[in-house]
Amino acid sequence: MRTRAAVAVEAGKPLEIMEVELDGPKAGEVLVEIKATGLCHTDEFTRSGDDPEGIFPAILGHEGAGVVVEIGEGVTSLEVGDHVIPLYTPECRECEYCLNPKTNLCQSIRATQGQGLLPDGTTRFRMLDGTPIHHYMGCSTFANHTVVPEIALAKIRKDAPFDKVCYIGCGVSTGIGAVINTAKVEIGSRAVVFGLGGIGLNVIQGLRLAGADQIVGVDLNDDKAEMARRFGLTDFVNPSKVEGDIVAHLVELTKGGADYTFDATGNVNVMRTALECAHKGWGESIIIGVAPAGAEISTRPFQLVTGRIWRGTAFGGVRGRTEVPKIVDWYMDGKIEIDPMITHKLSLDQINEGFELMHKGQSIRAVVEF
Amino acid sequence: MRTRAAVAVEAGKPLEIMEVELDGPKAGEVLVEIKATGLCHTDEFTRSGDDPEGIFPAILGHEGAGVVVEIGEGVTSLEVGDHVIPLYTPECRECEYCLNPKTNLCQSIRATQGQGLLPDGTTRFRMLDGTPIHHYMGCSTFANHTVVPEIALAKIRKDAPFDKVCYIGCGVSTGIGAVINTAKVEIGSRAVVFGLGGIGLNVIQGLRLAGADQIVGVDLNDDKAEMARRFGLTDFVNPSKVEGDIVAHLVELTKGGADYTFDATGNVNVMRTALECAHKGWGESIIIGVAPAGAEISTRPFQLVTGRIWRGTAFGGVRGRTEVPKIVDWYMDGKIEIDPMITHKLSLDQINEGFELMHKGQSIRAVVEF
Ligand SMILES: NC(=O)c1ccc[n+]([C@@H]2O[C@H](COP(=O)([O-])OP(=O)(O)OC[C@H]3O[C@@H](n4cnc5c(N)ncnc54)[C@H](O)[C@@H]3O)[C@@H](O)[C@H]2O)c1
Ligand SMILES: NC(=O)c1ccc[n+]([C@@H]2O[C@H](COP(=O)([O-])OP(=O)(O)OC[C@H]3O[C@@H](n4cnc5c(N)ncnc54)[C@H](O)[C@@H]3O)[C@@H](O)[C@H]2O)c1
Repeated sequence: MRTRAAVAVEAGKPLEIMEVELDGPKAGEVLVEIKATGLCHTDEFTRSGDDPEGIFPAILGHEGAGVVVEIGEGVTSLEVGDHVIPLYTPECRECEYCLNPKTNLCQSIRATQGQGLLPDGTTRFRMLDGTPIHHYMGCSTFANHTVVPEIALAKIRKDAPFDKVCYIGCGVSTGIGAVINTAKVEIGSRAVVFGLGGIGLNVIQGLRLAGADQIVGVDLNDDKAEMARRFGLTDFVNPSKVEGDIVAHLVELTKGGADYTFDATGNVNVMRTALECAHKGWGESIIIGVAPAGAEISTRPFQLVTGRIWRGTAFGGVRGRTEVPKIVDWYMDGKIEIDPMITHKLSLDQINEGFELMHKGQSIRAVVEF
Repeated sequence: MRTRAAVAVEAGKPLEIMEVELDGPKAGEVLVEIKATGLCHTDEFTRSGDDPEGIFPAILGHEGAGVVVEIGEGVTSLEVGDHVIPLYTPECRECEYCLNPKTNLCQSIRATQGQGLLPDGTTRFRMLDGTPIHHYMGCSTFANHTVVPEIALAKIRKDAPFDKVCYIGCGVSTGIGAVINTAKVEIGSRAVVFGLGGIGLNVIQGLRLAGADQIVGVDLNDDKAEMARRFGLTDFVNPSKVEGDIVAHLVELTKGGADYTFDATGNVNVMRTALECAHKGWGESIIIGVAPAGAEISTRPFQLVTGRIWRGTAFGGVRGRTEVPKIVDWYMDGKIEIDPMITHKLSLDQINEGFELMHKGQSIRAVVEF
């Protein structure tokens, strides 16, 4: 079949909107009509050419929601008409990782996914001249239709609006999951969140959900405070306006250090600050941000010997097929908010404007609707 | 009273054996006759002058065992004749730290202890010319008699031999506690231990106690393997004899990475290797070693984002008054071994020879008996 897609033809170039050929689903695969997709920093990381592992041409996008149009041989957990969210972290429920309750990093199709291919080692997308187009993070949601492995689709309720719940495909789950699954924040905790963008805001609402007493937000941009307050922020700190040591300032503000800190900036210096302002004895710091290629974190080991813990999280520790439907329920039940974070709606043709908004720091989430 | 002690008169100088004046215990303090004391690297770190926070003159030593000779006003948990192990990490059971089950780092007397003083801000030791001598880590076990706060004494059974259980005052508890309290190693785990010295061997016997399936030991010194096997080591690796990348080698040996890794070398490069050979998704690395002043650990944050966890441990996460008596029981019941690790017995006059043995890597533990 033919479908419309935004294709990353070359590193660093704007996406090109074009008709592409899409083969039907093979065994274990599902054809999905994408109804809406968010634009995330990870897409931009690859588009821009900053990602050393980026493969081109490719159809980017990994934060989508849509409807099952056709199922391949042997697919049993989904049927035509089901509403789904594609998962860049699949959940096969059979590999060593899925069987270990400590992780969500299903490895069953990792090798091919990393190469921009479906599990059988081929791609379903082609340009009209026959050039194969790579998949991206197993999702490729910047296309009106895409083919995704069954194990990488979460089935969600049919009354959930695509243009909101698509955000659960990455940002919402990552931020809230970091709090609930990775940090396991307890009621009454004090927390510091670095970076109040699309991820940081979701960390903040995760902290509110978990019953944190103090939620400090740190951002270089004062404009970020207002929206963050709406999601539960109790204190705002702009490090560029703090005199003296930012770690000391945050330790004092949290009365001895935070129980939990989160980096949602991707800056390795911020990651160090986040660790060091965690409470001696028990403070845990969780890295969510993705650092530039080659960048390293450091600290004195004494920080850990005296009880701080350094962790990271991918997709918020969420097992997508099991947990994403629950997060959709939380949204539908009003337990979490998404609407105010969807600051821009675009058509597929306007997708490059979405990346510009991101660069200017003007959007939290821009969503493309098909 | 007068007692004999090995005094660190100046940084970098051998200890001087001398008679010193010791005042009796004030309120909340206890006079202890030390019967035996181990020599630990931390003592040497301070003696040598490498410790930037070292204070002189001082009576070092923090791995002792002895008998209560006199109790100060208000002391209720101990009486004359009780057998005790001094604790460099006290347990007041009242501070914010003691009341938080996540940490053992009681802070109630930390400020004065760090200054080489007892909680009232003074020292009980003096030279015969009146010069005050500082306490060390709240213990000062390189003296035949010492004064210690009540909250820094673990009461132990009377049939336990001083010259063995003194080692529980630091090395044994640190190594076993790192496994049981900090890592909480589960039955069937795979583990890698870096550094098979006095701490590493106790990590190994802790792993055996916890039911680990694979216990890999890593040391530059081949001679360390034999003793380690006796405590449960299953595989030995000398990194200087591995061709290619040591991380890749250890990941292969542990079939994908270790569930738990431990640094007991104090070398920051080793700490990085220890983190990176931990299993993707869930591997935890625990830093026990104390690094040189100013040294830093680093890694790519991706190591954490993909599920590895970096922790540290002090005194093995052990709450001394509560847990040290239990570890003494484990020794007396044959659950853990200590005797083969006490490789040298010395008199107080020979104490400087003990540090030489340490430097030559010839001793695991040298113990001074009074
Ligand atoms: N681990 C995961 O699974 C996962 C998933 C999605 C995104 N991410 C990563 O999370 C990070 C945040 O993503 P986002 O979409 O929220 O980005 P964003 O650009 O919307 O937000 C980043 C925020 O950090 C602030 N900031 C930048 N540098 C700062 C500094 N030095 N100090 C304080 N604040 C600073 C910016 O002002 C901005 O508000 C990115 O690195 C992204 O790649 C990780
Ligand atoms: N965190 C705590 O509470 C605590 C308590 C006591 C001791 N420590 C620290 O633990 C560390 C170990 O103490 P110890 O008494 O066992 O020392 P040790 O000297 O007896 O043992 C260290 C071992 O590490 C080996 N080693 C050194 N460099 C190595 C390398 N690059 N690769 C592999 N092996 C290497 C040595 O050959 C030796 O066998 C020290 O740093 C000490 O200060 C920490």
